[in-house]
Amino acid sequence: MEVKIGIAQANKYAMSECGDSIEVTERPRGGVSAILADGQGSGRAAKLTSSMVVHKASSLIAEGARDGAVARAVHDYLYTMKNGKVSSTLTVLSVDLETYTAVFSRNSNCPVIVKLDYGIDVYEQEINSIGVHKHMKPLMHQMPLETGMIFVSYSDGIQAAGRKRGRSMNFDHFLKIIQENQPEDATFIAESILEYALQLDDYRPGDDMTVVVMGVTDSENLHKIRRMGISFPC
Amino acid sequence: MEVKIGIAQANKYAMSECGDSIEVTERPRGGVSAILADGQGSGRAAKLTSSMVVHKASSLIAEGARDGAVARAVHDYLYTMKNGKVSSTLTVLSVDLETYTAVFSRNSNCPVIVKLDYGIDVYEQEINSIGVHKHMKPLMHQMPLETGMIFVSYSDGIQAAGRKRGRSMNFDHFLKIIQENQPEDATFIAESILEYALQLDDYRPGDDMTVVVMGVTDSENLHKIRRMGISFPC
Repeated sequence: MEVKIGIAQANKYAMSECGDSIEVTERPRGGVSAILADGQGSGRAAKLTSSMVVHKASSLIAEGARDGAVARAVHDYLYTMKNGKVSSTLTVLSVDLETYTAVFSRNSNCPVIVKLDYGIDVYEQEINSIGVHKHMKPLMHQMPLETGMIFVSYSDGIQAAGRKRGRSMNFDHFLKIIQENQPEDATFIAESILEYALQLDDYRPGDDMTVVVMGVTDSENLHKIRRMGISFPC
Repeated sequence: MEVKIGIAQANKYAMSECGDSIEVTERPRGGVSAILADGQGSGRAAKLTSSMVVHKASSLIAEGARDGAVARAVHDYLYTMKNGKVSSTLTVLSVDLETYTAVFSRNSNCPVIVKLDYGIDVYEQEINSIGVHKHMKPLMHQMPLETGMIFVSYSDGIQAAGRKRGRSMNFDHFLKIIQENQPEDATFIAESILEYALQLDDYRPGDDMTVVVMGVTDSENLHKIRRMGISFPC
């Protein structure tokens, strides 16, 4: 089995900093997690907020904390540090090899889309962001891990693409991209969704955009080589 | 300008966990850093040590700490947590857009190799690992950032490849791989170096192996899209 992760990200138009942060962390008892946060506002302040959130989450995961505890602790941390005045979304997608399950935790207005053997499920129940409400819980989902699974999530800039130009994002187009591709194509799926959103915004994104895709493949990686490739425009 | 990062990693033969950890972190005032640690020993204990080291370093970098302070603080942290009894290497390669320099910090027996316009420099001065010596300083190097630059570093398993089989690693072969490739080929360079080391060990690595490559390209990424692709064998 091999987990493929694809991430694509674009800044809000004319902003040098991206208010979304994303990090991928290995789980100490086996597996891997992708952590996505969208900090309130845009630019530097949003960047610092979302960076603080994903780094705190990533440190806790690396120390072995379970995902539900991570979301709660990161909320409490942001709430304490910013005195309940700054919000952030937080989405954690995990392949947990200890329990052999896929786990995801949502505190975001954006959905988690899950492709399974029999079709696609969309998890989009309403849930608060972290940081501003004294009592906050993440929406947690856990399901048996199966090869062929694809998980997709994204930030607000994708969700709202085109809105300022009187267009609306066709969610079925996202589903079509996911339906027609395989877990091996995680990078391609992420880039295709971002490309579609950029088109809707005439390549001048109205907000920071991040897409994360995790695919669970049955490919046998003979020598268990891990690979990572990053392109970071400056 | 675009920074390309390529990482390739293989576990010690028959070990389910890799004692090396690597993480890539965005710098809050611009740029990106790659952090590589090789924890003492192998397996679970080494993994936990190196994971603790890279996460601490990554959190400090995300909070804006300068690289020299990061290496010192992470040493002090490991020294305190493990009572001076557990060592780890720590190498940080940074593209710092605030000062427009490349910065690297070494506490490792493995070199940092830098390809520049006029040739290749190898930084391999002897320096202690972190965690065990009360007084410890990193070896720091800083140079003007130029497109075309390539930085390469790796962990002990690459350095010692073949040794248990009476072969010795031909360092000139590494240099040839780096010489013949471009910054755009960061991923290819990382995988080629790992492949060569695996061959020397008959694909049964005597130690955990990690290679990290950063290339500074002049390619113009029109919409400033960041991309990340990860393959994580389970």
